[in-house]
Amino acid sequence: MLSEFELIARYFSRPPAPDSRTALGVGDDCALMTPAPGMQLAISSDMLVAGRHFFPDADPATLGHKCLAVNLSDLAAMGAQPIAFTLALALPEARAEWLAPFSRGMLALADEHGCELIGGDTTKGPLTISITVFGEVPPQQALRRDAARAGDDLWVSGSLGDARLALAGYRHEFSEDQAVNAEELAVAAPRMHAPTPRVALGLALRGIAHAAIDISDGLAGDLGHILTRSRVGATLDVDALPPGPALQQRDLHLRRRFTLSGGDDYELCFTAPVRQRDAVYKAAQAAGTPVTRIGSIDAAAGLRLLDAAGEPLQDTPDSFDHFRS
Amino acid sequence: MLSEFELIARYFSRPPAPDSRTALGVGDDCALMTPAPGMQLAISSDMLVAGRHFFPDADPATLGHKCLAVNLSDLAAMGAQPIAFTLALALPEARAEWLAPFSRGMLALADEHGCELIGGDTTKGPLTISITVFGEVPPQQALRRDAARAGDDLWVSGSLGDARLALAGYRHEFSEDQAVNAEELAVAAPRMHAPTPRVALGLALRGIAHAAIDISDGLAGDLGHILTRSRVGATLDVDALPPGPALQQRDLHLRRRFTLSGGDDYELCFTAPVRQRDAVYKAAQAAGTPVTRIGSIDAAAGLRLLDAAGEPLQDTPDSFDHFRS
Repeated sequence: MLSEFELIARYFSRPPAPDSRTALGVGDDCALMTPAPGMQLAISSDMLVAGRHFFPDADPATLGHKCLAVNLSDLAAMGAQPIAFTLALALPEARAEWLAPFSRGMLALADEHGCELIGGDTTKGPLTISITVFGEVPPQQALRRDAARAGDDLWVSGSLGDARLALAGYRHEFSEDQAVNAEELAVAAPRMHAPTPRVALGLALRGIAHAAIDISDGLAGDLGHILTRSRVGATLDVDALPPGPALQQRDLHLRRRFTLSGGDDYELCFTAPVRQRDAVYKAAQAAGTPVTRIGSIDAAAGLRLLDAAGEPLQDTPDSFDHFRS
Repeated sequence: MLSEFELIARYFSRPPAPDSRTALGVGDDCALMTPAPGMQLAISSDMLVAGRHFFPDADPATLGHKCLAVNLSDLAAMGAQPIAFTLALALPEARAEWLAPFSRGMLALADEHGCELIGGDTTKGPLTISITVFGEVPPQQALRRDAARAGDDLWVSGSLGDARLALAGYRHEFSEDQAVNAEELAVAAPRMHAPTPRVALGLALRGIAHAAIDISDGLAGDLGHILTRSRVGATLDVDALPPGPALQQRDLHLRRRFTLSGGDDYELCFTAPVRQRDAVYKAAQAAGTPVTRIGSIDAAAGLRLLDAAGEPLQDTPDSFDHFRS
């Protein structure tokens, strides 16, 4: 069996990138990093636990991708440029057959975003992956949750609900005649296993959008955080929410439920002034990420859900909450 | 039961300190931090798992202290000034009776060091605590593992082995006539449960010491990291190692074993040029932390263990290693 130190050296130490901000990476008591002068650091931590955030037998390469992707998604939601991350890893055992593809999947996404692994920790324990990610953003340009203003348009990137549909398939949630079939799963599963962090869109929205959040627990719940912190309300055109290509084929009720509160979407929900409508579309085009206008921010508190005819919806799906579910 | 968000708000959100570097703390996608101009950031992550790094029924207040202490110890070993940390927490259930004392113990130590909690994550899962800590250090002044030079004195702070003696007591490792008694445990246990990170000493050693490391896995093993990375060797006066007040009363063999490779000491092992001997003692006095000279750095690779008579020791205890033990 590999020792802890051999393990770190073999799978996670790499020579520093030529343009690295890191004076010292994996292998000392601390990493040393020199932030770019005048920039703010955006910092986020996420912990993923086997059996809760992923299946214990999940493919290690896609798991490695996903763990970093959900952290990069937090940077995207701030409009921050990824620069580095730390990885703390508890493993039942140090197996090369797991560690090699896990580190490969994670470091491939890291390289794609120029995000350097600068340190971390490994220990024996129930499979748990904890990442802290660092990004840079110019002062006053971060997309904060508390920056929505009454009258803003409400937007969402990409599409919603396919990750949740894949989960329903794995869990056999539906009756036999409604079961998620292999074809649907082939379309929906990548959204669950290998989300694309919307980093380019977040950067393109600097100076255009007001507030932003990434959708990890379901649109309705995550939008709720913007509303609470900005002390505003919103009106949401539920039938304008863009379902994923697999969910698209399902009935209206399921489309509404999974786009509103599916979870694991890792799209951006953001607000922007009406006068920035063209600028938002241009930013989205530059970032190669479609966006959809889904409602507006109101001065009156609360979230109002309307159907395609503009009539209020009756049911208001709760946000997925790790300790309530 | 508390929801995830109520839980975070109740126990871990506080108003920012008046001198905070943090523009935005707990409650957005990311924290925003403005590093002091011209400083390097020292960053370290540690993950502590119930049943491995602490007993599952550990007192939550001392556990909160210890989790942050071991991270601050890494900053101390770099000579970095603590500024902030993130906390990722997996919990089997969100119980106020556990969270209240845990956060109190952690935040009390944080306040002592002006180290602000700026973000994190909570989730349901096997009790696991993952902290990433941030400190500042002027460029070129960090105490790195690769900076030891042949001829340097070798030093250690405080005392060694009492944490390991307490563990032996809890585990009933000794035969009945050698068992750790209540009196010994009362002296030794605080060293295991509530280590004091040597932050003040690390800061005082800037510009004086060459290399430093904090002793978490046992002196011999951790010193080995300095030797490997500095491409040097060392001669260690084993009987000069300062045993803790409880271990002090034990026989020579146990004193050697637990001071050399006990683990969980969280003292600093460091090297400094011979001409800095007085400066080291003055730094130690200013920091209020005793230091002991325990050997010297050699050009020849390897670790040579000598007894009080200058004769080579036969047994060379291995470093405690999380995946080997």
